[in-house]
Amino acid sequence: MCVHNETSTGVTSDIAAVRRAMDAEKHPALLMVDTVSSLASIDYRHDEWGVDVTIGGSQKGLMLPPGLGFNAVSQRALSASAQARLPRAFWSWEDMKGPNANGYFPSTPATNLLYGLREAISILHEEGLEQVFQRHWRLSEATRRAVGAWGLELLCLNSAEYSPSCTAVLLPDGFNEVEFRTIVLDHYNLSLGAGLGKVAGRVFRIGHLGDLNDLMLCGTVCGVEMGLARFGVPHKAMGVAAAMAFLKESASVSAS
Amino acid sequence: MCVHNETSTGVTSDIAAVRRAMDAEKHPALLMVDTVSSLASIDYRHDEWGVDVTIGGSQKGLMLPPGLGFNAVSQRALSASAQARLPRAFWSWEDMKGPNANGYFPSTPATNLLYGLREAISILHEEGLEQVFQRHWRLSEATRRAVGAWGLELLCLNSAEYSPSCTAVLLPDGFNEVEFRTIVLDHYNLSLGAGLGKVAGRVFRIGHLGDLNDLMLCGTVCGVEMGLARFGVPHKAMGVAAAMAFLKESASVSAS
Amino acid sequence: MCVHNETSTGVTSDIAAVRRAMDAEKHPALLMVDTVSSLASIDYRHDEWGVDVTIGGSQKGLMLPPGLGFNAVSQRALSASAQARLPRAFWSWEDMKGPNANGYFPSTPATNLLYGLREAISILHEEGLEQVFQRHWRLSEATRRAVGAWGLELLCLNSAEYSPSCTAVLLPDGFNEVEFRTIVLDHYNLSLGAGLGKVAGRVFRIGHLGDLNDLMLCGTVCGVEMGLARFGVPHKAMGVAAAMAFLKESASVSAS
Amino acid sequence: MCVHNETSTGVTSDIAAVRRAMDAEKHPALLMVDTVSSLASIDYRHDEWGVDVTIGGSQKGLMLPPGLGFNAVSQRALSASAQARLPRAFWSWEDMKGPNANGYFPSTPATNLLYGLREAISILHEEGLEQVFQRHWRLSEATRRAVGAWGLELLCLNSAEYSPSCTAVLLPDGFNEVEFRTIVLDHYNLSLGAGLGKVAGRVFRIGHLGDLNDLMLCGTVCGVEMGLARFGVPHKAMGVAAAMAFLKESASVSAS
Repeated sequence: MCVHNETSTGVTSDIAAVRRAMDAEKHPALLMVDTVSSLASIDYRHDEWGVDVTIGGSQKGLMLPPGLGFNAVSQRALSASAQARLPRAFWSWEDMKGPNANGYFPSTPATNLLYGLREAISILHEEGLEQVFQRHWRLSEATRRAVGAWGLELLCLNSAEYSPSCTAVLLPDGFNEVEFRTIVLDHYNLSLGAGLGKVAGRVFRIGHLGDLNDLMLCGTVCGVEMGLARFGVPHKAMGVAAAMAFLKESASVSAS
Repeated sequence: MCVHNETSTGVTSDIAAVRRAMDAEKHPALLMVDTVSSLASIDYRHDEWGVDVTIGGSQKGLMLPPGLGFNAVSQRALSASAQARLPRAFWSWEDMKGPNANGYFPSTPATNLLYGLREAISILHEEGLEQVFQRHWRLSEATRRAVGAWGLELLCLNSAEYSPSCTAVLLPDGFNEVEFRTIVLDHYNLSLGAGLGKVAGRVFRIGHLGDLNDLMLCGTVCGVEMGLARFGVPHKAMGVAAAMAFLKESASVSAS
Repeated sequence: MCVHNETSTGVTSDIAAVRRAMDAEKHPALLMVDTVSSLASIDYRHDEWGVDVTIGGSQKGLMLPPGLGFNAVSQRALSASAQARLPRAFWSWEDMKGPNANGYFPSTPATNLLYGLREAISILHEEGLEQVFQRHWRLSEATRRAVGAWGLELLCLNSAEYSPSCTAVLLPDGFNEVEFRTIVLDHYNLSLGAGLGKVAGRVFRIGHLGDLNDLMLCGTVCGVEMGLARFGVPHKAMGVAAAMAFLKESASVSAS
Repeated sequence: MCVHNETSTGVTSDIAAVRRAMDAEKHPALLMVDTVSSLASIDYRHDEWGVDVTIGGSQKGLMLPPGLGFNAVSQRALSASAQARLPRAFWSWEDMKGPNANGYFPSTPATNLLYGLREAISILHEEGLEQVFQRHWRLSEATRRAVGAWGLELLCLNSAEYSPSCTAVLLPDGFNEVEFRTIVLDHYNLSLGAGLGKVAGRVFRIGHLGDLNDLMLCGTVCGVEMGLARFGVPHKAMGVAAAMAFLKESASVSAS
């Protein structure tokens, strides 16, 4: 089991490499991947990468309210499920298989969200999935340029695994992220992500997934930069300029 | 386990009597009740009737889109759950207990529906719960008067258990409910409930719960009566008149 | 100047005949027609009938909130306007002509309603304009059958001019329409049209235009019939039955 | 007749001073003021300033879709209107006076917008009108700091008349505002205001009225700054920094 985009750390895993490693060992395990914070914002290939079970949700890259979850299930996983002896109820796929083949559900689905999903998918295809993924990478790189210019540290150390949908930033020792986020929310109506698990208290997160463009990101980066000043975090007030410089230069490239 | 309002048969169970019978036998079982098709349309008392687990949903009497489920859980059920050894994941209350105490959730809730729920509850209280329950009983009785006047049979034989939220009607032998409902849907844009389980093919159901008033019910009854004629079901075309007669007479009473 | 569908009396005028009469007299007047309560519910031909100025609104047959008005203007009317010496400001077409040629407006339009208008027109075309007009005629005839069965009188005496979008009904002497409509609104949440002008106090009106189907009309007729009983108006309680009989028989015809 | 906030130039007029000048001359003219782009974003006093007719609209400071216009009319203006002999139809207040006294309208109003208006007014009062006006002044000053830092010129030369709702900026000779705005719209999805009248081609306008906060303004200023670079307009890329500096310093002040 692994997470495609690890939202608490801002790390995107190389799922294809995980599968290659499993195959190299001829390991019989099924591969299950959580794409909640990557689906429709970061390129992902259930079939091509040999994933057995993919899990997603409606409320991030798909730009919908929360309320829908998705399972993509390989034939291998379905077979394993048929033979498994673990007691199951909610998590069983059996009830779903029959009605789903005809586009129905074994119980009442969140109908309104299904209409929203149809429109969300249409919006994504109008832009083009390649363009959507490229947009998120650009916005994430602009965010990282801002973090670097502030003199702060990214939690993710391996640049090959930077997340296009979420950037986790370390605050210097002595500065608590909960207080920082409260100040930013109260003064700028900007909701930053909390530090989770081991890095609670030390890390805040900037989300840049879903329906987001250059100026929405600029506003976000401005809010963080003003918040750092207000909270007294030592930093260089050059983050916004760095983000804008990258947005300008990368837009030129993409236009050529 | 029992169902407060049995939607497939149009029967409302006497939950308090179930509890009294259990108590008379000093039976240690927990009492679990499904209120999906009764909550907020039929009077129900989780605490007063000594229910241990009550289950409800957003999409019927609460007049919301589908997407929210509710659990009301007694202290006894929580204690039993703490000692139970059945493997649980989704159905476990443990994760919910902590955050719920402060109005939060262990995972992302269907936020938009929570706003809708607040408004739905406010609408119900504006009318008054007693008035809401009385309204549904009146509309259900008008429906039954129509059924009787048509010369058709109710599936529910015990008048003490007639459902205020849903009426199940038997079609005469040789008339299939699926074809009947299709004709009514196609010609009158009226969606009747299907026969379920043992009575599939023989029973159709008229829902009269949630946001419904006298004239919406009248339109419904007119649609069924015209559908019976169109499908060639032997009946007396007196159902609408009977429903209206009852609505007139019962409104006079309630106004006095 | 004339009104295509006279909403206070439930009379639809024969606009083509008006034009023919004007032409027969070689009368130079421009012909101006109000289609507020007919547009998109009753067949109307601005060009074919030789109308010079047609006025319409968004809030009836077009099924939109109120807020948009429409002018269709013949070349003859534009020329007359160019030479007219009547002082004009709001009613002048001059400011509109330039920007309108490119789909723009000289001042800020009610933008949101324009999006709604696009969808409304699409809904009308999905059904087909012929079908829309036929539907309204059917529903109006069912309404008139109800009125006749009640033993009440239509205000419109010439059956060739019955309105497909609105039926005006005379109450017997001694029964005030304002009180009647108040009772119907209070008890059945059904808003009937007021008597206007000369027939104020004596006439109530049943609207049946826009987004309306058989069962919505049935609910309406039921509400009027129950209201007549409640207000003590002498009538035969056969109106609903007559409306349903016609809806059944005319649907059979249209389905063949 | 004058305009409270002149949207094409970004100038707010001192209406009270206009009235004092008129009074000093004992001039009998009525004073009519257009508040379309100031109402609910800039302090305005119809009664206190002795204005006779105030005109407003729904689509700017009131944060509604376009579709409602407002007239506030003094007793003096009503009397003058009663004696005036200018032909009037749409602009006459006579039809409105009767029904308006009871909260009604002589013709069908844009009902949906009236519900929106009620909510908009409630939102404004929750924040407090003083706070709303102060917020717009702060955001406008941040905008002007950005313009100054870019080395561009404001069209409004008198600092006492700077508009809190709209800032008009001169582009250097040789740079056309239409092309500039097109680039900004295409690359940043930011819609700047056109140069109007005499300054068409030379002036672009930044709107900062209605529902706007610090970060939305920051995003706007970032978009203009990136657009200036992209269009090759000579400027110092210090506007965003200047706006942020002011927002930080003024927020500190207002918090104390």
